[in-house]
Amino acid sequence: MTSSHPFYQALQTNVNRLKQCLCIGLDPDPRKLPIGYSQNIHGVESFLNDIVEITKDRCVAYKPNISFFEAMGLEGLHVLERVMARIPSSVPTVLDAKRGDIGNTSAMQARYIFDYFGASATTVHPYMGDDSVVPFLEHKDRYTFVLALTSNPGSKDFEKLSMASGDPLYSAVVEKSREWHAMYHNVGLVVGATQSEMGLIRKQTPDQLFLIPGVGAQGGDYGEVKAAGQNSDGLALINMSRAILYASPSKEGMASTIHGIIDQLN
Amino acid sequence: MTSSHPFYQALQTNVNRLKQCLCIGLDPDPRKLPIGYSQNIHGVESFLNDIVEITKDRCVAYKPNISFFEAMGLEGLHVLERVMARIPSSVPTVLDAKRGDIGNTSAMQARYIFDYFGASATTVHPYMGDDSVVPFLEHKDRYTFVLALTSNPGSKDFEKLSMASGDPLYSAVVEKSREWHAMYHNVGLVVGATQSEMGLIRKQTPDQLFLIPGVGAQGGDYGEVKAAGQNSDGLALINMSRAILYASPSKEGMASTIHGIIDQLN
Repeated sequence: MTSSHPFYQALQTNVNRLKQCLCIGLDPDPRKLPIGYSQNIHGVESFLNDIVEITKDRCVAYKPNISFFEAMGLEGLHVLERVMARIPSSVPTVLDAKRGDIGNTSAMQARYIFDYFGASATTVHPYMGDDSVVPFLEHKDRYTFVLALTSNPGSKDFEKLSMASGDPLYSAVVEKSREWHAMYHNVGLVVGATQSEMGLIRKQTPDQLFLIPGVGAQGGDYGEVKAAGQNSDGLALINMSRAILYASPSKEGMASTIHGIIDQLN
Repeated sequence: MTSSHPFYQALQTNVNRLKQCLCIGLDPDPRKLPIGYSQNIHGVESFLNDIVEITKDRCVAYKPNISFFEAMGLEGLHVLERVMARIPSSVPTVLDAKRGDIGNTSAMQARYIFDYFGASATTVHPYMGDDSVVPFLEHKDRYTFVLALTSNPGSKDFEKLSMASGDPLYSAVVEKSREWHAMYHNVGLVVGATQSEMGLIRKQTPDQLFLIPGVGAQGGDYGEVKAAGQNSDGLALINMSRAILYASPSKEGMASTIHGIIDQLN
């Protein structure tokens, strides 16, 4: 499979150049900032600007999680806006927002994420079905990752429930996402890194992109995850957030610590 | 069942006084404003202030859908903030946000909705399971409505899929929400008004509150929905948005048109 989709092409260019699939999660928490940054919203912005400066030539994409900015109130969202604007256009952005509502409301959500923030891609909940997802896909120059199998303990509650068909629920979501992708050509899947099921999902859909959270702080191993999760073009988005952002206890050591961690990825 | 929960008590007081269960959905769309309001964000704010002024003694709760404000960018969210502040404390607010993420991220989302905006209640996606929902429930003085069976066509795609048990997926969600409610005493369900299944869900859980969208513009009938959806205390939140907000073509006729519609509800 090849794709002329701008998000897919930017990703392919970056993966080819860097020989890895690292997506850096921008999940700022004022309480966790390295020494040298004020433990407030100004410290957060300065910290994120430094993170982008250190890593912009070393990752294939960024994934800001909007909820970490929202937790700081509307000022936090203004920080997100400015940080998004500083990310070079060569590095695509997945604005992780996990939305999904009835059709006319999903259209509003897509406008906020894609038009207002200018994100290259986002994430959506599949629960409400077709008309809750399609308004995102209709932004044809953007990419949408549907939650399939997540990396948290709660994935056992519904995602892994057995359906009448014998397959788990997430497998029905994967199947539906394949139909969407066949029609819109811009549909990936969120597949948790701690899940041994990743190989099976990869077999079910060899071509679709996986966005893979759960590496590092949540326990997944980068190398194993890459082998199991990359698609037929060798592409994946393997997300690391806390394990990179908060690797250094202080601002001075931050660049060298982070470069050291990325050097180990292969 | 009785409950000392502040949201439940406020709702009970309002239902007893008004003898109806109308929740008004605040879903502003600049393109739909009645004649007399500017078709921009200032018109939206003035329109919503008038709607609240006209209806604050005639509905049991308000349900702003955050996505309609987000679609106007951060200025829209500042409008939401000010509108929330103008709603009298006697009328509880369900900030409809349909969130849900891994545990530490859901905690951020709950902080945004409950602490920053001060909402009395919210809505969440169940897909990611227990640890994605519980951080909302831990705000014990707030209420959380879990999406069970929604009113949109896409509800057939996953919500109604048959599980190995023979029951549909939404029934497993209802069952899990009962467990959460038994533990936290603040868990309701979103049950779509166009669904004949509402009576069955009511039997499955006689006491939990239903938030019922889909009346009016989406096709549900208020009286039938109330009969099928109220709980053992006669309570429900029956949401009408477009059918009330945009009932009048012009600003002058708005108050009398809206009062006329509410007079018909019983």
